[in-house]
Amino acid sequence: MVKEGEHGSFNGKDYVDPPAAPLIDAAELTKWSFYRALIAEFIATLLFLYITVSTVIGYKRQAESSTDPCAGVGILGIAWAFGGMIFVLVYCTAGISGGHINPAVTFGLLLARKVSLIRAIAYTVAQCLGAICGVGLVKAFQKSYYNGNGGGANGLAEGYSTGTGLGAEIIGTFVLVYTVFSATDPKRSARDSHVPVLAPLPIGFAVFIVHLATIPITGTGINPARSIGAAVIYNKAWDHHWIFWVGPMLGAAIAAFYHQFILRAGAAKALGSFRSQTQVV
Amino acid sequence: MVKEGEHGSFNGKDYVDPPAAPLIDAAELTKWSFYRALIAEFIATLLFLYITVSTVIGYKRQAESSTDPCAGVGILGIAWAFGGMIFVLVYCTAGISGGHINPAVTFGLLLARKVSLIRAIAYTVAQCLGAICGVGLVKAFQKSYYNGNGGGANGLAEGYSTGTGLGAEIIGTFVLVYTVFSATDPKRSARDSHVPVLAPLPIGFAVFIVHLATIPITGTGINPARSIGAAVIYNKAWDHHWIFWVGPMLGAAIAAFYHQFILRAGAAKALGSFRSQTQVV
Amino acid sequence: MVKEGEHGSFNGKDYVDPPAAPLIDAAELTKWSFYRALIAEFIATLLFLYITVSTVIGYKRQAESSTDPCAGVGILGIAWAFGGMIFVLVYCTAGISGGHINPAVTFGLLLARKVSLIRAIAYTVAQCLGAICGVGLVKAFQKSYYNGNGGGANGLAEGYSTGTGLGAEIIGTFVLVYTVFSATDPKRSARDSHVPVLAPLPIGFAVFIVHLATIPITGTGINPARSIGAAVIYNKAWDHHWIFWVGPMLGAAIAAFYHQFILRAGAAKALGSFRSQTQVV
Amino acid sequence: MVKEGEHGSFNGKDYVDPPAAPLIDAAELTKWSFYRALIAEFIATLLFLYITVSTVIGYKRQAESSTDPCAGVGILGIAWAFGGMIFVLVYCTAGISGGHINPAVTFGLLLARKVSLIRAIAYTVAQCLGAICGVGLVKAFQKSYYNGNGGGANGLAEGYSTGTGLGAEIIGTFVLVYTVFSATDPKRSARDSHVPVLAPLPIGFAVFIVHLATIPITGTGINPARSIGAAVIYNKAWDHHWIFWVGPMLGAAIAAFYHQFILRAGAAKALGSFRSQTQVV
Repeated sequence: MVKEGEHGSFNGKDYVDPPAAPLIDAAELTKWSFYRALIAEFIATLLFLYITVSTVIGYKRQAESSTDPCAGVGILGIAWAFGGMIFVLVYCTAGISGGHINPAVTFGLLLARKVSLIRAIAYTVAQCLGAICGVGLVKAFQKSYYNGNGGGANGLAEGYSTGTGLGAEIIGTFVLVYTVFSATDPKRSARDSHVPVLAPLPIGFAVFIVHLATIPITGTGINPARSIGAAVIYNKAWDHHWIFWVGPMLGAAIAAFYHQFILRAGAAKALGSFRSQTQVV
Repeated sequence: MVKEGEHGSFNGKDYVDPPAAPLIDAAELTKWSFYRALIAEFIATLLFLYITVSTVIGYKRQAESSTDPCAGVGILGIAWAFGGMIFVLVYCTAGISGGHINPAVTFGLLLARKVSLIRAIAYTVAQCLGAICGVGLVKAFQKSYYNGNGGGANGLAEGYSTGTGLGAEIIGTFVLVYTVFSATDPKRSARDSHVPVLAPLPIGFAVFIVHLATIPITGTGINPARSIGAAVIYNKAWDHHWIFWVGPMLGAAIAAFYHQFILRAGAAKALGSFRSQTQVV
Repeated sequence: MVKEGEHGSFNGKDYVDPPAAPLIDAAELTKWSFYRALIAEFIATLLFLYITVSTVIGYKRQAESSTDPCAGVGILGIAWAFGGMIFVLVYCTAGISGGHINPAVTFGLLLARKVSLIRAIAYTVAQCLGAICGVGLVKAFQKSYYNGNGGGANGLAEGYSTGTGLGAEIIGTFVLVYTVFSATDPKRSARDSHVPVLAPLPIGFAVFIVHLATIPITGTGINPARSIGAAVIYNKAWDHHWIFWVGPMLGAAIAAFYHQFILRAGAAKALGSFRSQTQVV
Repeated sequence: MVKEGEHGSFNGKDYVDPPAAPLIDAAELTKWSFYRALIAEFIATLLFLYITVSTVIGYKRQAESSTDPCAGVGILGIAWAFGGMIFVLVYCTAGISGGHINPAVTFGLLLARKVSLIRAIAYTVAQCLGAICGVGLVKAFQKSYYNGNGGGANGLAEGYSTGTGLGAEIIGTFVLVYTVFSATDPKRSARDSHVPVLAPLPIGFAVFIVHLATIPITGTGINPARSIGAAVIYNKAWDHHWIFWVGPMLGAAIAAFYHQFILRAGAAKALGSFRSQTQVV
């Protein structure tokens, strides 16, 4: 799992931080792997929205038309669809594009200098286009059910203020992006033999759990591509749409700050005392 | 986890693609391991259908006969039965037969030249026979409940067109076979130390999630053996049966094309620039 | 993960089968680790029954007394309690006792000569005593609810014949013990780099899924200790109790036969041709 | 995964127990990593309570106000929120603070001499403050719903005695802390190649399953920080609050005793006979 040289010595810094990504890396644009990554992000976000919005519409249709109020997968099933799909897609695309599938994740990694500005912009465009196409497929497949059941669009539930919605999106995205940073920390794979890296699974679970908590409030965005995809195709839920961009971006920025300046900066300073002090639970 | 030689050098191509499987490999037929693999596929598909169709019939019976409309495991439980069983069975049979348990998966791997034609045909026959026996067991155990509750057969739900059903099967199978290709990519195990290979878990989750989205539309096939097993034993649901062969086979073919020509071909060309450009989330 | 010598050469047999356990190993009885294993099995089975039967009783009480028919965790929650608890307990006790927690598993491993007869008998006694104490705790904590809600005992549901119940127990236990054998195969850890061994997770999932399918028929035994624990404390459900011993023992025996004589015997014979023929999905 | 020296020889003791933590380690207080760990515990417990109590309140509000009694994620969804969040947060904070997020876990590790007294006290304070802030956020976001739906506070359900509630908390915490000890045993990572260490996943599952069993009785504490956080903010559920401190602390103490004196002491004595006797299921 680790290269020998990395593990053999515990003196000093026993892991290697990759250098900060440049803001603009023109050489990227000349490589096929860059465009392949864009295709992978596009397809992954398309599949993500197709599957999850299909689940939402199918659940609402069954709950309505059926004589059995318990027909359908329930809100719990919807939360599993979002979280499970992120687990699967991050697993599939991690080696190709890094598996972002979410402009807020891309933004957090940009702030931490782990992707270039140009890559971040291109990813965000690919993700939003993929999301629009994914929701478009759902509408194409089942137009009347789609329009009659809210179109899978995010919005403020009755009884909640704008501030509550914004706060819920900020904290929800913080949980997700904090997990992403924790799971991909280079320090982790080099040293923590107690906590092997199964990055995609906790990332998927974070999405699942945030949906359990936030569906009653905003339907759960925490992913601007997901929100804009449904909003564009449904085209009747633009009122609070800004919440689903400002909230996730703020949450991702706070998570990037928390990880880079609180958790990792301390790590750098206090490295000599690391091993004698922590124990893993 | 990796052989030393593989990991020690990152110059040039640091992983080994297995050679393409021959279309017809007569030598295979002389080996016990070939027949053992067929037995394993037969038994696994039998268990898959027995468990999942039992879950479907048990749920429908409880939801009907009970005074409590929420009795039974729900559609969510049915989706877990399909996905969880694939996780368990792929885990168990991976080392014996490759753990296909699905003619669409076999077909995708045939197109990618990872199994020989003769093996693909033999697997498909073993899977279909296993599925028929598995559903047969359910009917033998509980004949009246089985016939009275739809027999676990796939079909188009009311209100959906043939095209929608076909599209749902194509995309659902694409998600599954794309996950299979991603999980078994030899490049993955050689290089991505951030994403260790727990192949069966994301494959099982892909099946689970596709069921959440597609049960309201077609009951979810994405596996021709599963569909023909229930159709043969129930023998009243042949109307749209072609959808459950054409859809999965098309979805698997598109996934094979996407993985081999878009994702991997790019990998081959752009290998020199690989490491400096991707980061794993 | 593997010792160097094991992995370095692929010539001939590249893994080591442990020698068959003797039927009677008197030396075992003189060692503390034997008694420690018995304690671990006793405590694990006690916790298993306490948690799962508490879940069953709590669900039934809530579903009954509440005005909301959807209160409680549902049958799906009960299935998770059984499967999740096995995952956790096998994980915890694997290094101490092997993590059987089930006389049928012990019996299967005895037939495969992986435990001595004396250890198998002692484990079975410890498991049954633990189960009785675990259910006893539930009754001590909530006597009236316990007696009023069926006591968590196994039995044939209305409308099913004895043969169906027996068949369901045989196949359910086969699925479990087949997974146990697959997960602990020494060949697996030595060679299958594509399928890393997370033994307890698929074992727990197997238990979970079998419950989804079999709860409507027998309540799901597949574990004689679980069945006798509830039967002794409830003391009103002895009618078909023999099913929950004969079924699981037969299922375990068939699984042991299938793994040792079909899957592994073939492996031994056809070893030379192994690597060129299998591919992992 | 293991250092070479550890694995190369099986003679004698092939793993290294870390030395017992001192009761008071003044040097700790001079290091940034100590304060960073406190921040990580504070933030993790805050997120834990925010997400889980939001889920509880959202579920109760939907179940009440809706015409559909099955709206909301159900008790099963609540159990997933608690267990899944512990999985994610232990995964994220394990390398920083050890990932306790629970005073009972900290207390168990203190008794086993794995953390110093001063660290245990500081962690407990950070966890309780984090929990209060997390529940405070939920109340700030949705005050009327929070107060109208029980505030996520623990308490004895109708029909259960104090003794039952205490017993349920003791056993539930025992299951959790026993899993924590099993997952972080240094012997485990050094030797059990059959059971790789995915510590956070079984720990999260243990929390999930204990909630399934114990929600009907006490709402499930097994974490004094979780209980006091809700009690302080709701401020109407102090009657049996002592149960949620005495129960978890007793359960953790018994688990520490069981692991250190029964399971590990035996390991030390009987080490020579270890390998020939155990087999992993």
